[in-house]
Amino acid sequence: MPTDRVQLYDTTLRDGSQMEGISLSVEDKLRITRKLDELGLEWIEGGFPGSNPKDAEYFRRLPSLNLKNAKVSAFGGTRKPNLTCESDQNIQSMAAAGTPGITLVGKASMYQVQRILETSPEENLAMIFETVRHFKDMGKTVFFDAEHFFDGFIGDPDYALQCIATAARAGADALVLCDTNGGMTTPAMLRAIGAANDRVHDVRLGIHCHNDAGLAVANSLAAVEAGVWQVQGCINGWGERCGNADILTILANLKLKMGIDVIEDEQLARLAEVATFANELANMVPNPQAPYVGASAFAHKAGYHVAGIMKDENAYQHIDPGLVGNHSRVLVSELAGQRNLLMKLAEQGIDYPFSQAEIKQLLETVKQKESEGYQYEGAEASFELLVRRTLPGYRAPFELEDFVIVERRRKGAEGSQLGEMLAEAMVKIRVSGELEQTAAEGNGPVNALDLAARKALKPFFPNVSNLKLVDYKVRILDSQAATGARVRVLIESTDGVRYWTTVGSSTDIIEASWLALADALEYALLPG
Amino acid sequence: MPTDRVQLYDTTLRDGSQMEGISLSVEDKLRITRKLDELGLEWIEGGFPGSNPKDAEYFRRLPSLNLKNAKVSAFGGTRKPNLTCESDQNIQSMAAAGTPGITLVGKASMYQVQRILETSPEENLAMIFETVRHFKDMGKTVFFDAEHFFDGFIGDPDYALQCIATAARAGADALVLCDTNGGMTTPAMLRAIGAANDRVHDVRLGIHCHNDAGLAVANSLAAVEAGVWQVQGCINGWGERCGNADILTILANLKLKMGIDVIEDEQLARLAEVATFANELANMVPNPQAPYVGASAFAHKAGYHVAGIMKDENAYQHIDPGLVGNHSRVLVSELAGQRNLLMKLAEQGIDYPFSQAEIKQLLETVKQKESEGYQYEGAEASFELLVRRTLPGYRAPFELEDFVIVERRRKGAEGSQLGEMLAEAMVKIRVSGELEQTAAEGNGPVNALDLAARKALKPFFPNVSNLKLVDYKVRILDSQAATGARVRVLIESTDGVRYWTTVGSSTDIIEASWLALADALEYALLPG
Repeated sequence: MPTDRVQLYDTTLRDGSQMEGISLSVEDKLRITRKLDELGLEWIEGGFPGSNPKDAEYFRRLPSLNLKNAKVSAFGGTRKPNLTCESDQNIQSMAAAGTPGITLVGKASMYQVQRILETSPEENLAMIFETVRHFKDMGKTVFFDAEHFFDGFIGDPDYALQCIATAARAGADALVLCDTNGGMTTPAMLRAIGAANDRVHDVRLGIHCHNDAGLAVANSLAAVEAGVWQVQGCINGWGERCGNADILTILANLKLKMGIDVIEDEQLARLAEVATFANELANMVPNPQAPYVGASAFAHKAGYHVAGIMKDENAYQHIDPGLVGNHSRVLVSELAGQRNLLMKLAEQGIDYPFSQAEIKQLLETVKQKESEGYQYEGAEASFELLVRRTLPGYRAPFELEDFVIVERRRKGAEGSQLGEMLAEAMVKIRVSGELEQTAAEGNGPVNALDLAARKALKPFFPNVSNLKLVDYKVRILDSQAATGARVRVLIESTDGVRYWTTVGSSTDIIEASWLALADALEYALLPG
Repeated sequence: MPTDRVQLYDTTLRDGSQMEGISLSVEDKLRITRKLDELGLEWIEGGFPGSNPKDAEYFRRLPSLNLKNAKVSAFGGTRKPNLTCESDQNIQSMAAAGTPGITLVGKASMYQVQRILETSPEENLAMIFETVRHFKDMGKTVFFDAEHFFDGFIGDPDYALQCIATAARAGADALVLCDTNGGMTTPAMLRAIGAANDRVHDVRLGIHCHNDAGLAVANSLAAVEAGVWQVQGCINGWGERCGNADILTILANLKLKMGIDVIEDEQLARLAEVATFANELANMVPNPQAPYVGASAFAHKAGYHVAGIMKDENAYQHIDPGLVGNHSRVLVSELAGQRNLLMKLAEQGIDYPFSQAEIKQLLETVKQKESEGYQYEGAEASFELLVRRTLPGYRAPFELEDFVIVERRRKGAEGSQLGEMLAEAMVKIRVSGELEQTAAEGNGPVNALDLAARKALKPFFPNVSNLKLVDYKVRILDSQAATGARVRVLIESTDGVRYWTTVGSSTDIIEASWLALADALEYALLPG
């Protein structure tokens, strides 16, 4: 539901990936693109095609996604000083990306032009004009990212304004004012936006904030109040240094606090899911305090808060957490927990008539498992097995009796740092009373265990060869316990039709992996 | 250097400790108090003496600190409905704390009074008046925390204003307007502050923000712009749900951006130290993106940013990081080129005169390693070892010849899902020609290997027992290769003085862990 009032523009895949510790594969980037599309964002900055081959591959594979809501933009700089657009390799790479949008970053600061770009103010204006015009002539939507606009405005207001006016004259579709160094206070930012509004009448403004002064979200919203149209940000506030403005927080504030319907209600209800999805893919530790989407965002601890909440669940929360797909976590609020559990059972299609006592028992079991490091939010298949195992008459399709893993590393040849590694697993599995013992070698201990288990199951369940594990993730829980820490393993599997995820947790990574693997196999072999 | 313009009031020890995962001992609270005093804050909310015996002990031991700058306040509610101050046990506990300040929280919302407090609007006003007067009669400085003031103002503006006017009439020294649920936008907050300014002329206002809409810092600063005097917040933005306003960010913004000298320059230069100190004491994982004080706050990754920084170190940072006791860092990553490498070598103090060809070779090695899954941006110690190993005359302090890991899982007792796990490691290590072979058992294969390696090294390097691994992270790289995927392991270690991080990568998680572990040990044992 794009509104004419505000346009959301996501730069997670470009500026967000500049965050320390983030390294996204092409596959990760494609999956995030699909997620952002589902969330209902209008524009996605896909990457910097001139900068690395990974981004070029991303753009090549992009059309296969068939996006429903979002358009994608390729990012890059204005042409280099004293080149033409035709002779600048970066400009050619951007065009080759084949996207409907082009986001051009150009300097909007006299100091940056002279000191960092080391060219003349006039040449910089020519670079802006010619590059914008070049892409407009190709029929692209062109966003001009006015880098260092706010710092530039403080140093030499007229030149900063000239830069954006030049881009406007060349036909840019929006002039995005960038607080590149992230240090602006709100009043200083609003003064510069006011001047930009006075100078440029026919082209809409955008805002791109960084969080170095802890004000990125607030400044983005203040810019919207001041009439700015396009708002740029990143999922979970990723980005260089202190991060970019968190687009999820902005989105929720726009819709829930400012009444600007940037996305549909059903899309907003997936906000927490998007946050988690991105963290999982990038293996970032989620920020429990993240507004709206954090695990603690609606968690209540103080005794008098909890007492208040028992009288009215909104006594200590600013919105209904369900609006953003989150939930409150009042441990004493057993009712809320039971409701969640019942909803989940319905969702999974388990229609066994549980008694009140059984539900209570099940809730206890889930809580116990969660305290051991399990998390069922992303692992519905393990959750379903947990429930089914409590039902009368359930029989597991197989039982693992024992396993042994032997892993060896021998000294390498002289001069080579690495020796040869060998990982082997031996398993004993029982199926309806029959015992099967076998062994396999893998390229790691978990892989060996996986191969040995399938080998043992195959005589009984020939279909097991159709099973594929498609994803394997490890999360260290109490990472400060170092190599003695508890780990959680998530495994995603498919039989070519269905996909399911299972979870295991232990201080021993092999054991945690086995538990997730065993659930994955058990779920696959459940009688239809 | 207290200014008359703004008074800083820290509530880390009370509201901050409501954060999920935080539990401070009395000793911790006393140490944080001393740190806040050194930082130059004016008021510290010490705790809730009526709520638990730990806080009562804190107040007993407090005088021994001999604070130089800060005064301490005891927190608690107005008297209960239909009691007198004399008969209310909480009021008595607050007085017993013996602090110069008393911070009284009272409802300032009609809805909260009727629905949650379940008393009459008149009785609530009487509770506010009598309790403030009670403590003023004892000669205390009294701060009135107007709980739910902003939500209350939206629901019933006149009653919210009556509540603060009543506290003013009773002699309160400041009326602290609380955004208890943390959901206010800045314009909505400013409207309510304007009304409060109109209603109360003779008593100063304070502001207490929560971060549920991601606006706590911005709203606090906007309140200061609107004339508010006392600003409340917590170290590192701790606090219930999404946290309180981060007092460190506020402080830096006031001093560096708004020119309000709330503390001395020398005190500001300890900002990062205070953030780290608090995280260490509370055992919280630090937020690398924290404005001003985070480990990534001045970290540069994008190649064109780094290129800019080589021309002027402030090209991509909003302040000199030294002002807040932080420092800038250049991250080595696949996006970066030779410039990043050279800056990194300088930063690590490696001043070997590399030739152009050697630098090129080194960059090739880094790129090769990164394509194998290594990532050096968080693993400076492994990076340094990588470089040192290319220098003439480098000799590793030890060599691992072989290891064997055996891991067994035996069938559990009937009915138990888990069998017994056993993980053992055998290692052979060579130190200056001498071979040491030994073995150990751990709570997982990596832990066993870690313990065995230290055991083998101990005869040669007794200091190895001082080493502690403080963090262990696993990242699956091409997670879609499932259990055959490549993994990267990061290990952070300390000898009690220095901290360093190392990395290992392999398809085999044990091998990846070993490589990171071996680097951690090698780095520790490098001849000074």
